[in-house]
Amino acid sequence: MAVLVKTNRRVTMAARPEGLPKDLDFVVDEVEVGEPAPGEVLVRVLWVSVDPYQRGRMSQVRSYAKGLEVGDVITSQSLGEVVESQDGRFAPGDLVLGQLGWQEYAVVRGGTLRKVPELLDPPTLALHVVGMTGMTAYFGLLDVGRPKPGDTVVVSGAAGAVGQVVGQIAKLSGCRTVGIAGGPDKCTDCSLYGYDVALDYKDEGFRDGLKAACSDGIDVYFDNVGGNVSGAVHGRLNVGARIVICGQVSQYNLERPEPTFHPSLLIVYRARMEGFLVTDYAHRFDEAALRLARWVAEGKLVWREDVTDGLENAPAAFIGMLRGENRGKALVKVADRSVGREELK
Amino acid sequence: MAVLVKTNRRVTMAARPEGLPKDLDFVVDEVEVGEPAPGEVLVRVLWVSVDPYQRGRMSQVRSYAKGLEVGDVITSQSLGEVVESQDGRFAPGDLVLGQLGWQEYAVVRGGTLRKVPELLDPPTLALHVVGMTGMTAYFGLLDVGRPKPGDTVVVSGAAGAVGQVVGQIAKLSGCRTVGIAGGPDKCTDCSLYGYDVALDYKDEGFRDGLKAACSDGIDVYFDNVGGNVSGAVHGRLNVGARIVICGQVSQYNLERPEPTFHPSLLIVYRARMEGFLVTDYAHRFDEAALRLARWVAEGKLVWREDVTDGLENAPAAFIGMLRGENRGKALVKVADRSVGREELK
Repeated sequence: MAVLVKTNRRVTMAARPEGLPKDLDFVVDEVEVGEPAPGEVLVRVLWVSVDPYQRGRMSQVRSYAKGLEVGDVITSQSLGEVVESQDGRFAPGDLVLGQLGWQEYAVVRGGTLRKVPELLDPPTLALHVVGMTGMTAYFGLLDVGRPKPGDTVVVSGAAGAVGQVVGQIAKLSGCRTVGIAGGPDKCTDCSLYGYDVALDYKDEGFRDGLKAACSDGIDVYFDNVGGNVSGAVHGRLNVGARIVICGQVSQYNLERPEPTFHPSLLIVYRARMEGFLVTDYAHRFDEAALRLARWVAEGKLVWREDVTDGLENAPAAFIGMLRGENRGKALVKVADRSVGREELK
Repeated sequence: MAVLVKTNRRVTMAARPEGLPKDLDFVVDEVEVGEPAPGEVLVRVLWVSVDPYQRGRMSQVRSYAKGLEVGDVITSQSLGEVVESQDGRFAPGDLVLGQLGWQEYAVVRGGTLRKVPELLDPPTLALHVVGMTGMTAYFGLLDVGRPKPGDTVVVSGAAGAVGQVVGQIAKLSGCRTVGIAGGPDKCTDCSLYGYDVALDYKDEGFRDGLKAACSDGIDVYFDNVGGNVSGAVHGRLNVGARIVICGQVSQYNLERPEPTFHPSLLIVYRARMEGFLVTDYAHRFDEAALRLARWVAEGKLVWREDVTDGLENAPAAFIGMLRGENRGKALVKVADRSVGREELK
């Protein structure tokens, strides 16, 4: 069975970024679309995800996952449709989620794909609220942060893809919620996401605002950002506080990040600081996805997508996100879903 | 009932130390011995304890306990004997443990004292292995660090009062143990304390030695020290590592400690860093004391005391300990126990 579409456009790493990535660190090239071997599936990519962790993959610092080399397609979770399948579990037209990268087509092992239920509306939810960022919020807050009703939960990056879900799960857990975000627009968004108070860290009154908003101290700090913002939060912890280290986006573009934390604080507050990766909870993804999807269906979980059109614009969307310019989950739309199957064979 | 001994020598804070405390920050004065009111007990101090946490009490930085003011007696856990009691639970001659300070006599509420069993031999064990430092090791390692058999446990300040007990409890827990201490003498002591490997952080081969000793990575890091020593350890953690923040003695004499830790590491290793205070485990002191005393009786727990004679030498012992000059638990002997009761009335 031959595939008519011959070329696959891809975004690859042209140079290893130093500091904030720039356009020239990326290049769009074209290669032939591969043929799926037995056990493999050819997927046409519809949406790709833009996330802070991708910056880490572009650096050579030791981390939890193998980094990218120059010439590699940028790692990304993507939503696509099956074009051709040599794995009995998948058929042409199936909506699937996988690590497909920033490209138009991918040939991958069937075992690395997950089917996206047709009921999920919009299906892009599989890339965020009911997917990786939503599950990151779910496991990070509930399993690592362990909030109790009445706790004060502070979230940095509160209007981001993870932060928007953390605030809402914290409210559902009976907590008081304080969101920290950059700029008035994102602070406005925070009120949609279940935050009782939104604080703009760029505002000169930020520290005073934090003090006023957390007059009973902070029980859980869900940290996406690190750096000075977190420094302000650390001074207002309660005894027994939990600091969830989800991300440290303020540090990702620094060539030599300086230490930012005093471990002595953990003695003063008998506090716990813990990092996690959502991928370590793979055995519980179904639990989280079902719960998150139910909250969405019940209208208890709202979200905002920041959509950029066209694969070639993924680098710009990524750079903008690292600058904090996105409002909501950053996504790039690569293609429309096929109507019928005329394109598929 | 009058007390014949009229004067009480005390060591008080003469000036708030800046950096490493010096002799002139302390002064020995004499005051009248007080009379116990109903509910109070007059105690003659036999031994006082010298511990790193006392440095924190001398500074104005916000911490977990109220700090000292100039003129205050230095806070200390002490072992003493009851001279006169207005609390029915105590009788003259009883050995007791309490927060009596660096002084010869103290009048305190009976409810703040604990009787020391006459079976405890030597009774100074109540000031360390079966007391605060031993319980600090017990709860910090077992409850916060949660070692599993086969884990590699690294301890900084391994030859200190807490560290010497941590190594032995880690061995009893089936772990591999690596002790870090300053200088060859303390490293020699580490082998007494159950450490499989002892590393001298002052040695230029320290980092290479750490790498070799922890070729399977580090599962639990029990940190008494902080600073550069801990920086070396943090680079060798395993996924799922636990960092127990017991103390950060390298930081206590700095006027403005700089941050020393990158929270991002906790994501890379999905690790937990947690601080604790032994006093938060007061409801379980009996459990720990019984277990520790049994290990001592069975010969499974050895220790070393570093004894300084004479209350007036407590400041020198304290300064020496902060410099890392003590070998084993630093104690100051203030007086011999009364033979008979001739002195007591």
